[in-house]
Amino acid sequence: MEFGISPRAQEIRERLIEFMDAYVYPAEAVFEEQHRASPDRWVTPPIIEELKAKARAAGLWNLFLPHSERGAGLNNLDYAPLCEVMGRSEIAPEVFNCNAPDTGNMEVLERYGTEEHKRQWLEPLLDGKIRSAFAMTEPMVASSDATNIESRIERDGDDYVINGRKWWTSGAPDPRCKILIFMGKTRFDGPRHSQQSMVLVPMDTPGVTVLRPLKVFGYDDAPHGHAEVLFENVRVPVENILLGEGRGFEIAQGRLGPGRIHHCMRLIGLAERALESMCKRAQQRTAFGKTLAEHGMTRHYIAQSRMEIDQARLLTLKAAWMMDTVGNKNAKSEIAAIKVVAPNMATRVIDRAIQVHGGGGVCQDFFLAKAYAGARTLRLADGPDEVHQETIAKLELAKHALG
Amino acid sequence: MEFGISPRAQEIRERLIEFMDAYVYPAEAVFEEQHRASPDRWVTPPIIEELKAKARAAGLWNLFLPHSERGAGLNNLDYAPLCEVMGRSEIAPEVFNCNAPDTGNMEVLERYGTEEHKRQWLEPLLDGKIRSAFAMTEPMVASSDATNIESRIERDGDDYVINGRKWWTSGAPDPRCKILIFMGKTRFDGPRHSQQSMVLVPMDTPGVTVLRPLKVFGYDDAPHGHAEVLFENVRVPVENILLGEGRGFEIAQGRLGPGRIHHCMRLIGLAERALESMCKRAQQRTAFGKTLAEHGMTRHYIAQSRMEIDQARLLTLKAAWMMDTVGNKNAKSEIAAIKVVAPNMATRVIDRAIQVHGGGGVCQDFFLAKAYAGARTLRLADGPDEVHQETIAKLELAKHALG
Amino acid sequence: MEFGISPRAQEIRERLIEFMDAYVYPAEAVFEEQHRASPDRWVTPPIIEELKAKARAAGLWNLFLPHSERGAGLNNLDYAPLCEVMGRSEIAPEVFNCNAPDTGNMEVLERYGTEEHKRQWLEPLLDGKIRSAFAMTEPMVASSDATNIESRIERDGDDYVINGRKWWTSGAPDPRCKILIFMGKTRFDGPRHSQQSMVLVPMDTPGVTVLRPLKVFGYDDAPHGHAEVLFENVRVPVENILLGEGRGFEIAQGRLGPGRIHHCMRLIGLAERALESMCKRAQQRTAFGKTLAEHGMTRHYIAQSRMEIDQARLLTLKAAWMMDTVGNKNAKSEIAAIKVVAPNMATRVIDRAIQVHGGGGVCQDFFLAKAYAGARTLRLADGPDEVHQETIAKLELAKHALG
Amino acid sequence: MEFGISPRAQEIRERLIEFMDAYVYPAEAVFEEQHRASPDRWVTPPIIEELKAKARAAGLWNLFLPHSERGAGLNNLDYAPLCEVMGRSEIAPEVFNCNAPDTGNMEVLERYGTEEHKRQWLEPLLDGKIRSAFAMTEPMVASSDATNIESRIERDGDDYVINGRKWWTSGAPDPRCKILIFMGKTRFDGPRHSQQSMVLVPMDTPGVTVLRPLKVFGYDDAPHGHAEVLFENVRVPVENILLGEGRGFEIAQGRLGPGRIHHCMRLIGLAERALESMCKRAQQRTAFGKTLAEHGMTRHYIAQSRMEIDQARLLTLKAAWMMDTVGNKNAKSEIAAIKVVAPNMATRVIDRAIQVHGGGGVCQDFFLAKAYAGARTLRLADGPDEVHQETIAKLELAKHALG
Repeated sequence: MEFGISPRAQEIRERLIEFMDAYVYPAEAVFEEQHRASPDRWVTPPIIEELKAKARAAGLWNLFLPHSERGAGLNNLDYAPLCEVMGRSEIAPEVFNCNAPDTGNMEVLERYGTEEHKRQWLEPLLDGKIRSAFAMTEPMVASSDATNIESRIERDGDDYVINGRKWWTSGAPDPRCKILIFMGKTRFDGPRHSQQSMVLVPMDTPGVTVLRPLKVFGYDDAPHGHAEVLFENVRVPVENILLGEGRGFEIAQGRLGPGRIHHCMRLIGLAERALESMCKRAQQRTAFGKTLAEHGMTRHYIAQSRMEIDQARLLTLKAAWMMDTVGNKNAKSEIAAIKVVAPNMATRVIDRAIQVHGGGGVCQDFFLAKAYAGARTLRLADGPDEVHQETIAKLELAKHALG
Repeated sequence: MEFGISPRAQEIRERLIEFMDAYVYPAEAVFEEQHRASPDRWVTPPIIEELKAKARAAGLWNLFLPHSERGAGLNNLDYAPLCEVMGRSEIAPEVFNCNAPDTGNMEVLERYGTEEHKRQWLEPLLDGKIRSAFAMTEPMVASSDATNIESRIERDGDDYVINGRKWWTSGAPDPRCKILIFMGKTRFDGPRHSQQSMVLVPMDTPGVTVLRPLKVFGYDDAPHGHAEVLFENVRVPVENILLGEGRGFEIAQGRLGPGRIHHCMRLIGLAERALESMCKRAQQRTAFGKTLAEHGMTRHYIAQSRMEIDQARLLTLKAAWMMDTVGNKNAKSEIAAIKVVAPNMATRVIDRAIQVHGGGGVCQDFFLAKAYAGARTLRLADGPDEVHQETIAKLELAKHALG
Repeated sequence: MEFGISPRAQEIRERLIEFMDAYVYPAEAVFEEQHRASPDRWVTPPIIEELKAKARAAGLWNLFLPHSERGAGLNNLDYAPLCEVMGRSEIAPEVFNCNAPDTGNMEVLERYGTEEHKRQWLEPLLDGKIRSAFAMTEPMVASSDATNIESRIERDGDDYVINGRKWWTSGAPDPRCKILIFMGKTRFDGPRHSQQSMVLVPMDTPGVTVLRPLKVFGYDDAPHGHAEVLFENVRVPVENILLGEGRGFEIAQGRLGPGRIHHCMRLIGLAERALESMCKRAQQRTAFGKTLAEHGMTRHYIAQSRMEIDQARLLTLKAAWMMDTVGNKNAKSEIAAIKVVAPNMATRVIDRAIQVHGGGGVCQDFFLAKAYAGARTLRLADGPDEVHQETIAKLELAKHALG
Repeated sequence: MEFGISPRAQEIRERLIEFMDAYVYPAEAVFEEQHRASPDRWVTPPIIEELKAKARAAGLWNLFLPHSERGAGLNNLDYAPLCEVMGRSEIAPEVFNCNAPDTGNMEVLERYGTEEHKRQWLEPLLDGKIRSAFAMTEPMVASSDATNIESRIERDGDDYVINGRKWWTSGAPDPRCKILIFMGKTRFDGPRHSQQSMVLVPMDTPGVTVLRPLKVFGYDDAPHGHAEVLFENVRVPVENILLGEGRGFEIAQGRLGPGRIHHCMRLIGLAERALESMCKRAQQRTAFGKTLAEHGMTRHYIAQSRMEIDQARLLTLKAAWMMDTVGNKNAKSEIAAIKVVAPNMATRVIDRAIQVHGGGGVCQDFFLAKAYAGARTLRLADGPDEVHQETIAKLELAKHALG
């Protein structure tokens, strides 16, 4: 056992932190300003492309992709502390081409795509030239149980014809979003876990309509956003299927592992920044004759937050290590655990930071309220807490099954 | 002891519920629609004036004002279950002219205003013809400790000259807002609780600038809103002072009692509606072979919410009863307690409801995310949890002080 | 609505408090001393009989029995604040002949017993001459689901023959315990809620064996205690049945309502005493340059405890009021709620008090550790939290059932 | 970073687990039986010496002592998973000569003792021939602040004369306890952290009186136990001082680090066993038509427990790694954190297990209630939660101190 970061990751981490300090944090206000000034909320402010170019030049690019020559060649464990650093700033992940849902989609294309898929979609994604979306959740059913999905992918000659309604398709409102991975049923009978398939749907295919942006608490999360998308008789060639009919669940399992762990790592970075902000604010403000930092409850909030963050980080790192060493499937319980632990921890830590910031904490003057909304949403996205807890309980009970 | 609602309150409550069912709930979507269609987010949709006229005609008007012939003549305890009903809908309180911060301001004018103040401001407020604001919190200091307030009210001949910066001045962005109660220091020396005063400042006085709306989580709460307001050499006649120089704290104590209890009552109604929504949604959606309502965790959420709501309601009612029978001052511990209990309860209940609603819970398709943001903010507004807990602890310890 | 105690209850309450101050609290150490000195842990120290005589002479006797001329004629609501006072001292309830499980048993005999049952058992119980037990829970099955009960009550001529094993039969080890209410199945087929019956079993009936005392967190709770009891071919005349075959559930429902509420009231008194002790200790001890009472966390514990106690008390009082006005059946949700709320509240409050008392808190120098053990056990006795929460959820969901 | 156990620790761990399975778990009932049968509760049952001999023969002996040739030569990180295994059984640590407070005392002697101290006391302790105690906490002051300590160690010629009253001196009632490390003040003026000293006091020194055993909840923890000990004019030669006058704090810091971490490791093992017991029981019992394991709340308890245990373990391991690599002083925040996290986690997990075990959970039929009492006490022993949280907050705030 060893808790130090590997020399390679450490070296990158130091450069990443320098880059964040030099370029990303100062760009947050610029991003806000450019976004506010833009006539179209759904156009990404130009500062992002500038930062992307800088990051790529600095070799801080595509750090996320494990087991692949196309990426930095880092495993999940080495990537974790880097991803955490990126999670500190809302604009950072895209700067390093490490943003959701693209990372998950790129990983799917890398693992399950054909050479043609890779040429057409993976390469421009890795170049940061286009963006992508993932269409799984549906508004009319409890999508936490993926067998509930009602969208149809029907074969018709050399095409699949797609019909359905999806929501929480993050990134779909972004005009740079060119490709979408669609999950739906190729059959409605047979074994429940062999009904689903995934196909690649170019965003400009006729019949694809981005209906409306969804707001998270009051935030539309523009220019990225989350859309409700309608698919009406959308036709794509049969070659667009990933891995084959009925393999959707298998891909989802593979995709969601890394996706979940990235979310958790980013949340840890976000919670760290909230704790820092809490410590600073507490030493700046005075009430009832002493600084907030001298009030016992503030100190309780700080200590509690430190303990919770550190525990969540270690659990996430361990899950990453298991994914690297025994595979996503054997890390099922740990992945489920961090998916519950990290967003719950982050909401608690951020909530305390909000409390210490007073009225400032809930408004636009600090990053906290928006961070809360995002972290809260991750208690639902990629499966609600309750479903992951079921997974953990099931595996735990199985260890002690009656003879 | 007796837990039944009084016949008078019960009679009004039934009519109120009928009115809500017949007019208010159906108007929520209309309000949204009119607001969205309006070119100016800060103009109140016309449906509100229509409903106000109906409510006044139905005798459901100014129910909040205790101990006064100007209102319905209900005491706090009788008003509580009515206020709770109004709290169920974001648009309801204004419909019945029972909305914050006007109720608190009207109560101040009723108690501490001169006849001229009443004629000029209280009457149009009671008529629902104008609205008002309350300017106390400041961005540069921890306003939880009101002795920190830095705004100046300086006498100059027959005028007071006001300088300062306030924020969280709710209702200030509304063009119907005509009068504002301003809290600031008339002296910076002497006893800490005699430095503050309150003066009436008409919104159109030169030097009053509404700088920007503050957002609560992502919501601007338009058309009501919360503003940062700048006061630069604002001149008002000395007659505009309430009660006299150095009496600001005294008025604040009187004002905040009822204001706090109204907030709590409304939060209880809001939490009830969230629980109802949770129960309904849980019976509509199916996951893993059974409805959400059949899952143990959902049932846990429901039971827990019922227990917490009922307890918070009873505590609030008891505080109301004490305010009516032994006065706000002797109800200090109870008022502090509900100010902590109600928003914390409401955030927990709403959070559970969000979880049961899945992705719908955090977006604009349900009232829940916005309700959460509002309830969360009330853990800070009118004093943060921590300050009220201090009050309770201090009173409790005093009961057992060492000889 | 009205939150004041009724004049009658208030008058008794004042006398009760005086009696507690004058006789009961000072007797706690005497009880300990006499018990320690006794060669037999299961003999009740003589101080108890002395106090009983005093209490009876003072008219503070059998205050618990509602709707009956045999008791004080107080309803549940009036009894509640009295029961709370008694709950402050472990030895108090018996002093006033208001101790579990006798109160529940007396209520069963009063409601469902024949004249002969009343003459033979109820009268000496009301006189405090004998004590009683209630045998329901079984070690081999999850007794939270009473349909699991396996004990047999088989008719044989004019007798019932009883076989089974019970545990948590509180009071059975006390030599003064003369009668026991036994719950078992008179049939193992037919509707699940008509299989159970209750019969009166004199403790000296052949075949009744008190096997061993059960400990609660190390405490044997002597001289009262909780026993595992074996019933082997125990024969009682058929007249000993209560209400008739198959009516066991019906009686249990009636019995458990008051029993549960008494437990809750006592727990509230116990929590109040813990809070008092916390406030006192916090002002006596100094650490890091200030009294514990000046540390923010202590104040947080105190405020939180005050808020939780007050809420639990109000909910319990409301449940009592409903039992009195609409009956136990219509108060089902409220009774279930207090059964969850009160023990959970009490364990939290006592736990905080333990923390403030430091090492003293967990040992025999204060009443706190034993109080914790008792309160914790009440999260299981008379049904675990989870079962009561199910009851509440079921009733709540039914209010919003789909059409 | 690497989360696997080292080959050496893994090899010992496997043998340890085999030994536990083969000898220790089966001996638990024997221990109980022998202890119950013994006329003296304070004599250790003979099974312990038998097991000690076996363990020593198996090379499973003194595994705890890091950086020393006298022990197994394992560092804290390698010892951690072994200590966890031992923590699963109340009787295990002594079997492997790894029990508190001896381990902490041996470490003090190893680090700070003279050759003569080592010969006289460390060697027989390492041989398991005698036992020892640590006398620090005092009944009359809040000992969480060690500067409060009132005991006097006064030089008189070639002796120190000791006067004071200590409690929670664990192990002192054991007749095999021969030596005690005593903390008291050699001066009452001067810098607060240079007033304290530690001296070795043989238990048979005149003036040492074991006054009474303290109970933890209802448990006396015999035959080990915790005593109140009186020191009246106890004379020891000046050579018995450790490190020198005024060095008591320094030693306490060094001693408490390892002691704390051992407690935490053991608690993790204890919590694991509670979780196992919960999983098993839940699959054995049926209520309301399904096993407890099929009830959502049980699954919630299991998942929650798994997540909390894993996080606490990782944090403890990281603290151990830091102690090994950067030293106890630089691991101050992490040591404080685990001291809060582990007992709180353990009490929660055990409490859930109790709930799933029903009435069995609180009584002597399972290890759970006693385990709870022990874990709860560790929220106070070696400093209460609140003090450790202060330490963490202070260090955290210092990172972000205002310029």
